Amino acid sequence: MTASPLLGQLMEALRCLPGVGPKSAQRMALHLLERDRPGGTRLAQALESAIERIGRCEQCRDLTEDPVCRICSDSRRDTSLLCVVESPSDVLAIEQATGYRGLYFVLMGRLSPLDGIGPEDLGLDELDRRLKDRTPAELIIATNPTVEGEATAIYLQRMASSYGIRATRISHGVPLGGELEFTDQSTIAHAFSSRLLVE
Amino acid sequence: MTASPLLGQLMEALRCLPGVGPKSAQRMALHLLERDRPGGTRLAQALESAIERIGRCEQCRDLTEDPVCRICSDSRRDTSLLCVVESPSDVLAIEQATGYRGLYFVLMGRLSPLDGIGPEDLGLDELDRRLKDRTPAELIIATNPTVEGEATAIYLQRMASSYGIRATRISHGVPLGGELEFTDQSTIAHAFSSRLLVE
Repeated sequence: MTASPLLGQLMEALRCLPGVGPKSAQRMALHLLERDRPGGTRLAQALESAIERIGRCEQCRDLTEDPVCRICSDSRRDTSLLCVVESPSDVLAIEQATGYRGLYFVLMGRLSPLDGIGPEDLGLDELDRRLKDRTPAELIIATNPTVEGEATAIYLQRMASSYGIRATRISHGVPLGGELEFTDQSTIAHAFSSRLLVE
Repeated sequence: MTASPLLGQLMEALRCLPGVGPKSAQRMALHLLERDRPGGTRLAQALESAIERIGRCEQCRDLTEDPVCRICSDSRRDTSLLCVVESPSDVLAIEQATGYRGLYFVLMGRLSPLDGIGPEDLGLDELDRRLKDRTPAELIIATNPTVEGEATAIYLQRMASSYGIRATRISHGVPLGGELEFTDQSTIAHAFSSRLLVE
């Protein structure tokens, strides 16, 4: 029995967050109510406005509250580079890790015929128009190194070559700081076969 | 650079939750926006109403949206038993783990002179009135086995004895399923000195 049904509802609602089970939900609910009500109010408001106002960028399909996102509308970005990624978190990861100053195109998924996800679901028709109308010098393919991600990469590579655009793929191999001993076999096999000449 | 300032604000706001760092906040925000907007809306509403409406129970000081909480106002509970705990999470833990059918009194803290927390901050004057007016048969002291929790327990024990009420303390020792080898020294020392006669 809980002393408060509303507290029970809050604990239940918190479980929509990934990685939050009953115990964490309880800890979070009590923390907010006992120690950080202003933080909880801010969170409620941030959730509400994000959910109400965030849609997709007309140009790159990334999440944004504007018709065209901050990256696409930034005149300082290099429009000759276009990087294709699977999801908004990939954009964040590349922005945080690299000095990349080009533009993005976010598929919001990957080709997966078994799940019924075809080119039209990933906005590849939009991308096709874009490659034709605002041809970049280079298409950087940064889909994930999974079976579907690789199939998507091949599809993108063919699209680029049909417009005579140089397509590149980000490299895959043993992670920096990683050790061969603890790296999985397929990564090692890939790293081995795609070895580069050193001089 | 993020494509969406509102997304950045949501990630920032999520960090008010205990145990949520920048990476988890990002994962949570993107999960809600990409895959569970109805869940996010429910969470925003649950937060808002909980923060707006949840206060303290007039009788036991537990968190509740009613003047008197569901436990205190449940006529099936045994009013001859009163269990004193430090926080609302202790009430939840006891309700979930035991078949206890008595009432609670929630201190919302523990005696801690160094932090300036005295009896009046814990509602011990209220508890005193309650012990006088609605004298229970037994006062179960379930404060935590820390220095402050023990000091609070002694204070409560004296209060009870001044009204001739039987005071009991929940037992402490090696946890069930625990092993001596991995139990800390003070717990072992306590378990040893408070050993019980078996027949």
